[in-house]
Amino acid sequence: MSKSHAHRLWIIEALEMRLASPSTLTLTQRLYQSLRDWIQDGALGTGSALPSSRHLARELGLGRNTVLGAIDRLTAEGFVEARPGAGVFVAEWRAGAMTEALPESDAAATTPELSTRGQRILDFSGVLTDRHTAFAPGVPALDQFPRERWQRLLRRHHQRAPLEWHDYQQQGGVPALREALCDYLRLSRSVRCRPEQILITQGAQQGFELIARLLADVGETVWMEEPGYGGAHSCFVAAGLKTSPLEVDSEGARAANMSTGLSSPRLIYVTPSHQYPSGVTMTLPRRMALLEAARRYAVWIIEDDYDSEFRYASAPIASLQGLVDNGPVIYVGTFSKVLYPGLRLGYLVLPEALVEPFKRANARLHREGQYVAQSALAEFIAEGYFVRHVSRMRELYRRRQANLRHALAPAIALGLKLSSGQAGMHLVAELGSLELETTLVTRGREAGILLSPLSRYYSKPPGKPGLVLGYAGATETEIASAGRWLSDAWCELSCSDSG
Amino acid sequence: MSKSHAHRLWIIEALEMRLASPSTLTLTQRLYQSLRDWIQDGALGTGSALPSSRHLARELGLGRNTVLGAIDRLTAEGFVEARPGAGVFVAEWRAGAMTEALPESDAAATTPELSTRGQRILDFSGVLTDRHTAFAPGVPALDQFPRERWQRLLRRHHQRAPLEWHDYQQQGGVPALREALCDYLRLSRSVRCRPEQILITQGAQQGFELIARLLADVGETVWMEEPGYGGAHSCFVAAGLKTSPLEVDSEGARAANMSTGLSSPRLIYVTPSHQYPSGVTMTLPRRMALLEAARRYAVWIIEDDYDSEFRYASAPIASLQGLVDNGPVIYVGTFSKVLYPGLRLGYLVLPEALVEPFKRANARLHREGQYVAQSALAEFIAEGYFVRHVSRMRELYRRRQANLRHALAPAIALGLKLSSGQAGMHLVAELGSLELETTLVTRGREAGILLSPLSRYYSKPPGKPGLVLGYAGATETEIASAGRWLSDAWCELSCSDSG
Repeated sequence: MSKSHAHRLWIIEALEMRLASPSTLTLTQRLYQSLRDWIQDGALGTGSALPSSRHLARELGLGRNTVLGAIDRLTAEGFVEARPGAGVFVAEWRAGAMTEALPESDAAATTPELSTRGQRILDFSGVLTDRHTAFAPGVPALDQFPRERWQRLLRRHHQRAPLEWHDYQQQGGVPALREALCDYLRLSRSVRCRPEQILITQGAQQGFELIARLLADVGETVWMEEPGYGGAHSCFVAAGLKTSPLEVDSEGARAANMSTGLSSPRLIYVTPSHQYPSGVTMTLPRRMALLEAARRYAVWIIEDDYDSEFRYASAPIASLQGLVDNGPVIYVGTFSKVLYPGLRLGYLVLPEALVEPFKRANARLHREGQYVAQSALAEFIAEGYFVRHVSRMRELYRRRQANLRHALAPAIALGLKLSSGQAGMHLVAELGSLELETTLVTRGREAGILLSPLSRYYSKPPGKPGLVLGYAGATETEIASAGRWLSDAWCELSCSDSG
Repeated sequence: MSKSHAHRLWIIEALEMRLASPSTLTLTQRLYQSLRDWIQDGALGTGSALPSSRHLARELGLGRNTVLGAIDRLTAEGFVEARPGAGVFVAEWRAGAMTEALPESDAAATTPELSTRGQRILDFSGVLTDRHTAFAPGVPALDQFPRERWQRLLRRHHQRAPLEWHDYQQQGGVPALREALCDYLRLSRSVRCRPEQILITQGAQQGFELIARLLADVGETVWMEEPGYGGAHSCFVAAGLKTSPLEVDSEGARAANMSTGLSSPRLIYVTPSHQYPSGVTMTLPRRMALLEAARRYAVWIIEDDYDSEFRYASAPIASLQGLVDNGPVIYVGTFSKVLYPGLRLGYLVLPEALVEPFKRANARLHREGQYVAQSALAEFIAEGYFVRHVSRMRELYRRRQANLRHALAPAIALGLKLSSGQAGMHLVAELGSLELETTLVTRGREAGILLSPLSRYYSKPPGKPGLVLGYAGATETEIASAGRWLSDAWCELSCSDSG
């Protein structure tokens, strides 16, 4: 028996075994995969002849096209080559320099590490958690969203959608949404704008990313409130920017101290309506000083107005953007708090000069999309459902905040301090020490209660100890029970620790 | 008449005029806005007394609460302050340092410029165009998408959606989608993966952004095919990375030359199945050499497999990712070409070691979303609608490519060279000079035909002259007519120019 005959016999027998075992793949796929496996693991070496397709088909009892399908694919991929008149042979498929097979299992050894900035983003991002518990900050009352009405709107707008809405778009968002939003922002937030200045984004985060990269170069500085919003911080770090902390006191970010001790900024990020997470509203003199500082440095202010719809003590505070005409302010808004986070829709209100560059860069970097949802949202706003939902949620969240205060009453009586709660979806509880913070967070985790440590909202350690307590997304019962638990735990630890 | 009496009279009269003019605002809003305007423009200076709310209500014929609503808001915002027993006065609302009003109209003069990288992104991004014409590259046949079935699926999955799908999510995508996708990729693309390795993103661009920032630091280098995909290029530039061009010839990116003359990379970006835009399939030896180079430098390869479903000459070429176990490859896919771009869904297939960091960073930087659409898509794939749609489109695009070749036949006969067209959604026509390219593009624009110049796909000028002709998204009639126009234009210009 010749060597090449034995070789062919081996292939046929091995293939018979492979094809006899159960599989969901087609015969062609299994034939292809088997031959490829053997070529790759060296069982079929370079230059080996394959049995002819006619021979294979006959011996394996397969249709000729079944066999040809496999051979054609191996040929197209370069594993085998047909030599006219001679047959099909395993090709010289490895690069000239590589006579040895690639080491297959040393990936762990050679795995490149994360980038420095990647590691930094992860250091700040905490662990993945199931956030559907009491005290998850920033989560709205999802069960209260008028889901059926929303679905009806989505369905209708899906049916009506022009074909091009499914294509790449470069309009800056559905015009009807930008118009409805513009009316709403002018009226309720005193934002000064025309619909053309609005750019719809896939969430506020995308807005921060556009701003960071289009308006600041690597190594430049952004001033950020301290404590502040980690999501924006991560975007700036990811964009290669440095952050400088702006101290926050009872009047908001300290504009007076800005010019000393800080490297001059390229951007200034603030949450003037409801400082995140402290809850302070920036006073008018501070706002004016901030505008003045931005003018002096010729830089842009990013006004993140993430939850100002929910203001309990008075009408919503007017936006910083609307204080002056053509101010150096980019207003950032989101539908995550008012509608629901999974929607992924937010927006920028841009100064005229930035509209066209931002639209073009957004279309280039992120692509636009979700035009059907945008169109449904336009109707949701224009028909008044939006304002009605906001107003219902404002009442609900006011009640939930009261529930939380009530549940915490025993601790408050013993000295636990809470933020004013004039607005928003969370309260901040001050704690006496970082040790207390850590102990409460750990015990909370064991009890299934998500306590967010205030110190983590500081970019520079150690930060002040405290807890950020979201109350909007949990039911009254959950708040009452988790609140009582927290009150008890705080009383127990504070009496024993600080005594 | 005392000065303060005259002052109060002036306010009342001015308010009467304001309230008499038609408006969609409430009376409280108009009152608030008028007073604020006058405070801001200086007509009501710091220290001026406002008429009492009782007086205002009586004189203007308004309810007392209507007036109080406006005064309360002005108080909350810091424009006025109540002095107990004395009344309400315009506050010292400007910052101490700022006695002058802010200059209101010098924004243009002080507008900070775009960042260097922002300008670079715009330089590459071209103008905003209506792309719904013949020859827009990368646009699928939107009218052929099974829209009604898709809407039915969306509706059903919307109704079934658990509440938490509307919340912030950190799962890496709907599990059912990751499973269905994994089966599909294993079978049709020979990708080696488990569902857990898949991270659903809002389009392939988001995938590039994650990779660029998590795996490379500012100033590091990514090797990119030249010519290559501009969308990825912009993401890398935005992330502060340098790009080094990898020459592409008839076997794909030139692995042999990699080690000379290039700074050592941190990432390598390739489109091995169907090089974008040249259309070349990377040969197996080149693939092995690429893997070897990635191992040598201990860096990751980004395999962008954007349109490999549409392969006409043979079965789809197996992915680079699947060539070796635990290879240093991140596979990037998108549903923009197979379903529709406006959907904004794509995915990464990550090596095990990167799964957790990428999930966490994605939740932090971009937030996850669109879980209802993801769930509907899972069923669309699992029930076989996806594969059926791909297969229908493959036939359609094959026909459309043939139509284009037919329409260009007169030019081809005179020497116009086209790429092989074994796969994908576009052909590349080579041109004799950059002047010819420019002239054709300009004339095309005048004729309403979108011609994408090949030279713009090069990151370093001048690039080779040519045209990238998308044929997938235009009807046969449009292709025939635009193709004939192009053939005529080419013949006319080539005969007169090169003669």
